[in-house]
Amino acid sequence: MFILLSIFMTLPVLLLAYSEAPNALAFAESASICFGIGLLGVLTTYRQARDLKPRYMFVLTVSSWFIIALLSSIPFYLSDLDLTIAEAVFEGTSGITTTGATVLTGLDTMDQDLLLWRSILQWIGGIGIIGMFVAVMPFLRVGGMRLFATESSEWTDKALPRMKTLSRGLLFVYVGFTVIAVTTYSFSGMSLFDAFNHGLTSIATGGFSTSDMSMGKFDSNLLLLQATLFMMIGSLPFFLFVREMHGQHGVLFRDQQVRLFLTILLVIPALLTLYRWYVSPIDFDIANGYVSTLFNVTSVVTTTGYASEDYSAWGPLTFVLFFFLMFVGGCSGSTAGGMKIFRFQLSLIVLREQLMRLLHPRAVFTRNYNGRPVSDEIISSMIAYTFIFLLCLLIITVSLAALQLDFITSLSGALTVLTNVGPALGDIIGPAGTFAPLPETAKWILSVGMLMGRLEILSVVIVLSPAFWRS
Amino acid sequence: MFILLSIFMTLPVLLLAYSEAPNALAFAESASICFGIGLLGVLTTYRQARDLKPRYMFVLTVSSWFIIALLSSIPFYLSDLDLTIAEAVFEGTSGITTTGATVLTGLDTMDQDLLLWRSILQWIGGIGIIGMFVAVMPFLRVGGMRLFATESSEWTDKALPRMKTLSRGLLFVYVGFTVIAVTTYSFSGMSLFDAFNHGLTSIATGGFSTSDMSMGKFDSNLLLLQATLFMMIGSLPFFLFVREMHGQHGVLFRDQQVRLFLTILLVIPALLTLYRWYVSPIDFDIANGYVSTLFNVTSVVTTTGYASEDYSAWGPLTFVLFFFLMFVGGCSGSTAGGMKIFRFQLSLIVLREQLMRLLHPRAVFTRNYNGRPVSDEIISSMIAYTFIFLLCLLIITVSLAALQLDFITSLSGALTVLTNVGPALGDIIGPAGTFAPLPETAKWILSVGMLMGRLEILSVVIVLSPAFWRS
Repeated sequence: MFILLSIFMTLPVLLLAYSEAPNALAFAESASICFGIGLLGVLTTYRQARDLKPRYMFVLTVSSWFIIALLSSIPFYLSDLDLTIAEAVFEGTSGITTTGATVLTGLDTMDQDLLLWRSILQWIGGIGIIGMFVAVMPFLRVGGMRLFATESSEWTDKALPRMKTLSRGLLFVYVGFTVIAVTTYSFSGMSLFDAFNHGLTSIATGGFSTSDMSMGKFDSNLLLLQATLFMMIGSLPFFLFVREMHGQHGVLFRDQQVRLFLTILLVIPALLTLYRWYVSPIDFDIANGYVSTLFNVTSVVTTTGYASEDYSAWGPLTFVLFFFLMFVGGCSGSTAGGMKIFRFQLSLIVLREQLMRLLHPRAVFTRNYNGRPVSDEIISSMIAYTFIFLLCLLIITVSLAALQLDFITSLSGALTVLTNVGPALGDIIGPAGTFAPLPETAKWILSVGMLMGRLEILSVVIVLSPAFWRS
Repeated sequence: MFILLSIFMTLPVLLLAYSEAPNALAFAESASICFGIGLLGVLTTYRQARDLKPRYMFVLTVSSWFIIALLSSIPFYLSDLDLTIAEAVFEGTSGITTTGATVLTGLDTMDQDLLLWRSILQWIGGIGIIGMFVAVMPFLRVGGMRLFATESSEWTDKALPRMKTLSRGLLFVYVGFTVIAVTTYSFSGMSLFDAFNHGLTSIATGGFSTSDMSMGKFDSNLLLLQATLFMMIGSLPFFLFVREMHGQHGVLFRDQQVRLFLTILLVIPALLTLYRWYVSPIDFDIANGYVSTLFNVTSVVTTTGYASEDYSAWGPLTFVLFFFLMFVGGCSGSTAGGMKIFRFQLSLIVLREQLMRLLHPRAVFTRNYNGRPVSDEIISSMIAYTFIFLLCLLIITVSLAALQLDFITSLSGALTVLTNVGPALGDIIGPAGTFAPLPETAKWILSVGMLMGRLEILSVVIVLSPAFWRS
């Protein structure tokens, strides 16, 4: 993985071969470091037996994400940007976790190689999380993820070929959609450079842009609608795309996750547009207003983090709605973060069952999700996830507040990193601001938060628990 | 119950017999209305068979709290205060649910009969909730309350005498502590009138005061410490006091709920005091600061709602901490609201079990709480409660924001009514403000929220669900 990362590190410079790459040296150095570490790893473990106990899987998964986040921040630190270590790590982590929060301003005039590196990082992070979802998560039984286990996620010799087919399919779909996004953007008014960057960060639901105004730079409803579409694609379960491709037509839209996800994006922006129009019927242009509302709501729900304008200035209702929408997240198996749609659906199932049980104490109930029974184990693992998510939200919020950050900044900052959305709310780190003004300690805390959010939190907590190391 | 309420309505006037009761007419009218409705109820249902199906219990419990809240607001509406209906209902509901949020200012010069009525309402609400906890809640299996079911909560003929003993014991303890509180307060510097009011609202963890400055009026550390003690007593499980009284010594402090509750109140104020001292070592007097921190933290955790100063101006960390402390609440079986300590403990148990299961997939785990096994039914009913609590928090917050209230006011306002704390956070409805500036619609919404919070939410949702009325 480190060697692969080092190859990716040369890309920003190679892609700009006919233009200038002012930080070529920084990238060369970073790539060498990565390659060196990777080579060292290969040499020391070469021909050693591979033992895939859950315990090792946990350590491997968690530690590799943390190390890659550190390595990917080296180019930022070595570049001419004059970043502190905390800032470079924040930017690198925000990239690889596809969060999209940034400490950088002046993106419009920034060195193109650095902008490219940010986008490439998010793109790698996107395919990384899809791969992890399919190959590792169901196996680890974390946070209800067992719900998505298939025969191919059993790590037996028999399942290996099937796994390979799936992986190849996922890569094909991911690259395919990226090519389509880049092409579409470039035909709709973006420069090739902008189209390439935004294509990568749209499908990865990352949200890094090439302008301080984010997507607002282009001032084009067409581009906003296209971006909305690509963010939605990035938030759908990619393994269902593969199954559609293999002839199982209709599986995508029959999926309960997908249905609720699309319903939310259909209903909320429409209602919010009507409300905004109701509040100020004169100033508000309903067509432009709808596109902008749809785009920004989609950006938050898909945990992308683009913005076309400062939506936190749209009034209290929008502010509150965006706060709650930050929790939601996309579908499992996608590049999106957040608590994920299926967890809310499982909670609703538990709630309905409980209400029925109160009315009919002796009845027996069965739980089904997407036509499959839901075991008690999945429910309690979902609960454990929710509880630890809220606990982390509390701890990070309190830590940020202890650094003298105000209530809204602390709470929405903690939330935006755990859900990998990107921008938070309020004046400082809202869609119009950046994370640069925060204290160094806050940047470290938030970087860890992004990684925890990306790793579904529980896996990190397990590796950190004393019981894990005791036995 | 209505007849009992009408008798209580005459109390404010009777108690002030030798002084003046400017709203005597209002109270007389209100008492007549209550008595009339009560008499009507008795006459129409006299000699009818009593059928205690869960279904009827739900309707009875929920509707009687709603009706009593409406009836108890009549004196406010008929008084010389010139309140709107929404304001009177808000004040009455805040009283009977022991919330302590108020729309009134100028308490220091207010008619004494009205102040008395507010305190008496909270006192009735306090014993009402204790009674409901013992007699109705475990029976309804709502929100994990089954955990506290004893043989006496089975409603069989055999259990009835035991139930009567318990009820008598609870009333004795409740009245006893109230008398002690009133006496203590009056010996420590309060006037008899102030002591009586604050005694009633301390034990009921209600929080109505006789001054706009709340407990800050008296400027006495002694009184703050006494109030801290009585609020804590009001938040402990009253049935354990009765068991202590009946010779089962030590049950109170062996209880897991009680232990965590006391630990929180021991640790958080101490740490917060140190932090406040660390931030401004010169201005901060550590002794006074500790008493004030202890008092205000206790007031919020016990969901009382007194304040000795505007703690929302103590800086970001305190603000955030008070926000999270508002969720906690006291012990089950007490007069306190909130999500209740035992639910957090059960969540922790589930979380720990889940982590252990991830490490040891084949091991079998048993859950214990207070030495009793915790069934899956209790866990899922606790989850259903938590989920619906957060859902209600979302709905009320969004509704308030739609009325153009800012994020902090909407969120903390929704939270403070659902947990029956009283004051919220921020400039408008924080500890230094009142709920008077809010729009009328917001007052209605918040009144319903207080009742839902008091009724553990689920019971209200059940009665409102279509499935309840269908079969």
